[in-house]
Amino acid sequence: MSTGLMIGIDIGGTKTLMIVTNREGSILAQHKQPTIQARQPSAFFMALFEQVHHILSTIDCTIADIEGIGIGLPGAVNVATGVITHIPALPLDGVSLIKQIEPFYQGALYLDNDVNVAALGEHWQGAGIEKKHMIMLTVGTGIGGAVILNDTLFRGADYTAGEVSYFVVDHQPEQRSLEVVNSHEFGRFESHASGTGIGIYARQWLTSQQADATHPIVVHAGGDIQQVQAVDVLMLAQAGNSDAKEIMNVPIDYMAAGIANMISLLNPECVVIGGGVADSSYYIEQLSQRIQQFTPIHAQLVPAVLGNVAGALGAVYGVLNDPLMMNPHSR
Amino acid sequence: MSTGLMIGIDIGGTKTLMIVTNREGSILAQHKQPTIQARQPSAFFMALFEQVHHILSTIDCTIADIEGIGIGLPGAVNVATGVITHIPALPLDGVSLIKQIEPFYQGALYLDNDVNVAALGEHWQGAGIEKKHMIMLTVGTGIGGAVILNDTLFRGADYTAGEVSYFVVDHQPEQRSLEVVNSHEFGRFESHASGTGIGIYARQWLTSQQADATHPIVVHAGGDIQQVQAVDVLMLAQAGNSDAKEIMNVPIDYMAAGIANMISLLNPECVVIGGGVADSSYYIEQLSQRIQQFTPIHAQLVPAVLGNVAGALGAVYGVLNDPLMMNPHSR
Repeated sequence: MSTGLMIGIDIGGTKTLMIVTNREGSILAQHKQPTIQARQPSAFFMALFEQVHHILSTIDCTIADIEGIGIGLPGAVNVATGVITHIPALPLDGVSLIKQIEPFYQGALYLDNDVNVAALGEHWQGAGIEKKHMIMLTVGTGIGGAVILNDTLFRGADYTAGEVSYFVVDHQPEQRSLEVVNSHEFGRFESHASGTGIGIYARQWLTSQQADATHPIVVHAGGDIQQVQAVDVLMLAQAGNSDAKEIMNVPIDYMAAGIANMISLLNPECVVIGGGVADSSYYIEQLSQRIQQFTPIHAQLVPAVLGNVAGALGAVYGVLNDPLMMNPHSR
Repeated sequence: MSTGLMIGIDIGGTKTLMIVTNREGSILAQHKQPTIQARQPSAFFMALFEQVHHILSTIDCTIADIEGIGIGLPGAVNVATGVITHIPALPLDGVSLIKQIEPFYQGALYLDNDVNVAALGEHWQGAGIEKKHMIMLTVGTGIGGAVILNDTLFRGADYTAGEVSYFVVDHQPEQRSLEVVNSHEFGRFESHASGTGIGIYARQWLTSQQADATHPIVVHAGGDIQQVQAVDVLMLAQAGNSDAKEIMNVPIDYMAAGIANMISLLNPECVVIGGGVADSSYYIEQLSQRIQQFTPIHAQLVPAVLGNVAGALGAVYGVLNDPLMMNPHSR
């Protein structure tokens, strides 16, 4: 008899969120814990399935009741083979998900990167419901992107579609500044427009203005300019502080130029913004206005609404709709 | 009995190319003429079908032998309804293709914009054969873009996907130059990187260098700096002239930044460059190198190979694969 029970796991660099849902995506159990620290993939998955058994025990179920497991990871994934191809934050590089999980679970699986599963989650149950063509950006330490076209994740020729961190929106060829862009460690667009970029620019700006410990933004950060982060500037801008608004102009402008390019190329119905900035209505409103100054093509700009649960829900959606093709010879 | 005969018509702002092909796209007849000048749509289509009858007579056929007609136009088109929604160069705004053509022909029809049909043509028989995901850019007076994903034209929510002319690659938020971008008549990206942009920049550069009528680029343009066009600079750069190469650095850099953004977002297998610049191997080589300085995501950069016939061939491909949905009440 079908239980319809699914597991979604969103493994982040520091936290892992695990949910058990039915086929409609209603969450029956939820558990958040620090991401497993293990040197070997086998130890990682053994510990992960201990957590799976634990969460299932809280709702009087066992792994035999589970009809699919979807996993989101902070790395690049070959969704056809289930092999993790690049994952800086975890010791899972080159790991085959199917082989690692087989000892613990033999049902339907899905594996994808964290931004793709967040986009699937928002498309299924959040800000992108009934949006046939949608782009999702997650703005945090870096900037991640995912592209949903015709209600399906678009992954590109080598599974790297959505790598908008590398966007170039500020090039001045006359200044021959090519040397700057030869490092691809951190994309140029994200160096300006990510949460990290907002923090760096804010500290530079405050320093250049000789702001002291009594400046409201610095006070919000605990009295030390060097501790000012994106969240401090966003909170103060939201509250109407003119310096915070002045600072936000620059990263918002960069972000607007990048999003305008995505809209001009793909004409999506909406662009969903996730990450900490999505909590600021000031940020979303300003961004929306500026995008229209860069492109006449219209798309809705909306904040993500599912918060931390988007990725785990999207992983469930993935295993429901697009499970890994199992190779019978590998099973 | 099936003849398999198809007609493809590429209506440009100044020239119209008409071809008759079989279902495999072999060209049986071809005719190029100035685009019809008519004030009324009815007169336009009457004259167009006189040309159709003429080309068919050259191969001893009649309109009754034709199994599909595809048309490419320099404007925006609702491909679901066959209504032309924006076409600055021709008096066909708001015109329903089905209604206008019905008096002359009642078979399968296809209508799309000129860049989309060129992309379909290159995908079917040219530089993009067997490329599942491909972006095409046509670089001329302006810059047009078309996106083929999963072997299908991607048109976006309002049929405007591919409007890369509006890309922003040179924004400097600190300089608050927003006023510049509020005019959408000519996109910012195309103002730098199109053939028009190359010509403008070349004339500025030559003037700033106080080049006289003996400068090789000026000589190539007939002795007058004000007559220098993109083709003059491209020819001289191809021949190794150092000033021409210096001039080309800037528009090539802009183009590279824009294409890098497209590649980062979509991870296509190839980007096909059409228009006059595609004839210059210097341009294609330089562009290819610079794109790699902006993004680590790889895509082949290839010149279009079908020349002027790409659009008409792509229109045939369109009517073969994706004919307009006929509304029985309108027929």
